[in-house]
Formats: sequence, C-alpha cells, structure tokens
Amino acid sequence: MKTISENRAFGGVQGVYSHASEACGCDMTFGLFLPEEAEHEPVPVVWYLSGLTCTHQNAMEKAGAQAWAAQQGLALIFPDTSPRGADIADDEAYDLGQGAGFYVNATEGPWAPNFRMWDYLTEELPHRLFSAYPLDEGRQAITGHSMGGHGALTIAMSFPGRFRSASAFAPIANPSASEWGRKQFTAYLGADEAKWAAHDACLLMKKRGFDGPMLIDQGSSDQFLELLRPEALAEAAASARQNMIFRMQKGYDHSYYFVSTFMEDHINFHAEALYA
Amino acid sequence: MKTISENRAFGGVQGVYSHASEACGCDMTFGLFLPEEAEHEPVPVVWYLSGLTCTHQNAMEKAGAQAWAAQQGLALIFPDTSPRGADIADDEAYDLGQGAGFYVNATEGPWAPNFRMWDYLTEELPHRLFSAYPLDEGRQAITGHSMGGHGALTIAMSFPGRFRSASAFAPIANPSASEWGRKQFTAYLGADEAKWAAHDACLLMKKRGFDGPMLIDQGSSDQFLELLRPEALAEAAASARQNMIFRMQKGYDHSYYFVSTFMEDHINFHAEALYA
Repeated sequence: MKTISENRAFGGVQGVYSHASEACGCDMTFGLFLPEEAEHEPVPVVWYLSGLTCTHQNAMEKAGAQAWAAQQGLALIFPDTSPRGADIADDEAYDLGQGAGFYVNATEGPWAPNFRMWDYLTEELPHRLFSAYPLDEGRQAITGHSMGGHGALTIAMSFPGRFRSASAFAPIANPSASEWGRKQFTAYLGADEAKWAAHDACLLMKKRGFDGPMLIDQGSSDQFLELLRPEALAEAAASARQNMIFRMQKGYDHSYYFVSTFMEDHINFHAEALYA
Repeated sequence: MKTISENRAFGGVQGVYSHASEACGCDMTFGLFLPEEAEHEPVPVVWYLSGLTCTHQNAMEKAGAQAWAAQQGLALIFPDTSPRGADIADDEAYDLGQGAGFYVNATEGPWAPNFRMWDYLTEELPHRLFSAYPLDEGRQAITGHSMGGHGALTIAMSFPGRFRSASAFAPIANPSASEWGRKQFTAYLGADEAKWAAHDACLLMKKRGFDGPMLIDQGSSDQFLELLRPEALAEAAASARQNMIFRMQKGYDHSYYFVSTFMEDHINFHAEALYA
C-alpha cells in the first residue's frame, strides 16, 4: 500500500493510498478517512461509491462527509469508479470505460481483463483494508451517488449480513430499463439481459431485498430523472415491504450541492445502524 | 448580472454570477450562497476571500461553509482572486498575476489597468451585491484563507464599522517581511515600501487594529509557515491588546481539509457577532 497523501482533518486523517490490484490488473487509488477514535480501536466503516466521471477524489473533497463521520467516529472509504491507465480500455463517451465501471465484472472484450469493479470492491479492497487499517469488519454500511448509488444498492443486497445499512443519493435505480445501464451492460456483460439482473437494484429488490434499513434521497429537479428511474425503485421497495425511507427533495438537482446537503442525514442514519 | 448557475443547497441556493467590472476592466465571476431566510428578508453576510491559484469556485465546493451558514441564516460571498482573461496581464509563476491579485490596487505596469481587487471588493462588488440581492449591508463579516486571509484582515482593519467580526485561516500575516508579499508588492505597488504598509495585517494591527472580535486558525504542520509568519501576527495583536482568539491547530496543514475542519467555528463566531 503506497501513501499518496495524508491530511489532518476533523481530528482524524484523510488519506489517499494506491496499490497494485489483482482484480483490475492495474494500480488502484482510494481515499480513506479515519476519525480520531481509530488511533485507539477499530472503527465502523461507511463505503461511499461515486458516480460517472468521478475518481476517489470528488466526494472526498466535495461531499462534506468527514465532518459528520468525525462526529460519529466512523471511517469513510472512497474507492475509484473504474480501472485506469494508458493501457486500460476506454471509450470517448463519458459514460463508458474509464470513470464508468458501473460496479460489475465485465465479461466482454475489450473490457473483460480489467473492468472487474465488483470483485475489486467486494473482495480485494475489503481484504486489503481490513488487514491494513483499524477498521471494524463487523460494522459496515454503504452509500453512493448516481452510478455509485446503483453500486451501493446492488452490492448491499448481494451480500446479506455484510452491511448493516445502505443508502443512496439519486441512484441509477433501474439500469436494465435505462440508457444509463442498457448501454453499459451490453458493452460489459453482453446482450443477454438475464445476466444483467444481478446488477439492477429494482430487480434485486423484488427478488430478495435488503436485510437492514435503507435511505434514498432524490432531488425533484434532478436533470437526469428519466435515466435514474426513482419511481421504479420506490414501487419495488414498497411492494417488497422493504425497510426504506425514500425522500423526494423538492428543488434539488444531481450535483454535489444536493449530496452535501443531505450527507449529515445519511451519516447519522448509518451511525444509528452501526452502533445499534 | 448574468447567472452562470444556481443549485439548491442546504435549503437555500448556491449561485454563480458574472458581471462586467469597472474596477477590473473585465468580466468578474463570484459565488453567492443565499440561505432559505433570504426568501423573506435581507440576511447577514460573510465574505470569504480565497488564496493563491483559487477562483470563486474552490471554497464554494470544498470548504463546507454552506452547511453552517444555512444553520445560522447567513449568506456567503465567494469572490474571485484576480481579474482574468486572455487580454489581462499574467505571469508564469503561480503566485503573481491571474489567480494572485493579493487584494491591492496595482499602480505599476502591466498590472495597473486591471489588478484593482481592493476597489473591486471594497466598492464595486458590495455596491452591486447590496442592490441586487437580499443582503443586509449593516451586518457584514469577513474571512479568508492564506492570501485571502491577508485580504480579509487588511480590508477589515481599513474600513472601521463595516465588518462586525473578522477571521482568517492561515493568513499571509506579514507580507512586507515574506516572499509571499515582497515579490507581489514590488510588482504591483512598486519598490517604495511605504506604500506596502496599508496592505500588511501586522502593520495595520500595530497602527489601528480592528474594532470587533477576530479569530485566527493556523495549522502547526502548515507547509508554508515561514511564508505566513503567524508569530508576527500573534505578537502584533497581543501587543495591540486586540480582541482576538489565535489558535495553533496541532498537525493541520494548509489544505482545505484544515479549512473545512474549522469552518463551523468560524461561521458560528461570525454569527454571534452578526446577531448580537
């Protein structure tokens, strides 16, 4: 694990680290905020998965989460959104290739060798983190924004017992039925839609749901509402009788101003579950 | 006044606007956060002046001030740090020219025609803001970071009665005795050091001080300590018996992680003065 930077923040440390990734076949970078409490004992963890075009850096700098995590004694993990590098496949579009991994294991060329964000985030990175840092593997929560909300919800539902709570800001909620999903799943997973189902929060909700509380915030003035399909998630969750708070926030858009506005609520929501 | 963007944030609106500036002879852009209360009545104002290389955008996105300003019902103004444009004088160094206006009126060529940030911030922009937005001109406070801390302190002390409180994060405290100051003052104001005195917080402190409370935060691990000279300000303020809280924050550096960590304290400090 290589240290890129460490800055004191809110009584703890905001670090950026990189490592050679087996899953992705390239160096991967992530941000980790450790609160002051981590000097003495392992602390609970909130994963934050970012959206299209983002790196580990955007949320770390703009979401304002450290203030609330420090108050609650929680660590924050900010992974990158895809493999990166000159040798890694890419596309001219902002929503395919580097910066747009969509949190799946690609099976189709040219993506298959490196675009394995599912394995990276659910196996490799946890293994590295919990052996290297004072983090409590038994107390994890997960959240994310947009494409990262999609990742957070699908990962949470796919690993029962791993996360005590899950939340999302304006998630891509139903990618199988959206151009933010169909395009990428076709490229990464192939044309057989049966293989997409494991990566669609609405379909997973209908099939198994999540064994903990969920919180979803969505701005009513989000410029991407038709691509996000929040109504499909609201319907699926209510039909499944999922323990979920779904909030339509009047006048908010898709930006980090929206995310930061409601970050305090999300961190406190996860803290309640993590300290229960 | 041209609207560049408006995003709902923390119950209010984070806007970015531009206008043709007479003082600077070019278009100038600024950020303005209006809390929800501004829908009903003029609200008190906190000015935030930014540091070297920054635009209006850095603090707006990374300082986390809106959360606390919204709680206190305060507006935030984020001006740019210099005139900008292809026709505006510049220098290859990051600390001279565009992005490095140092909050003075340049008298020397090639800077004199446009680098008039002092007049812009103390005359033109206030005039425009208070006539266009629901802001309470009678309740103003000012803060800033690094070069912006220098600007905040020198402007606060130069306009008695205008600002009820003043604060700074790691300010350039004694530019007449620092290479962050001597270089720029020589370029902008000329070699006669007598003309620099009006723009040195330590010299102003000894001469007249500030007629309200001041708060200074400085990281003990700041990589620029020798350029900032906080010890000179601490000495000058204590000698002047200035109403000031000066805090040396152990382990913090010069970054926005430092600024955001202590932003809540600064906003609350100004709120106490503005609502007294």
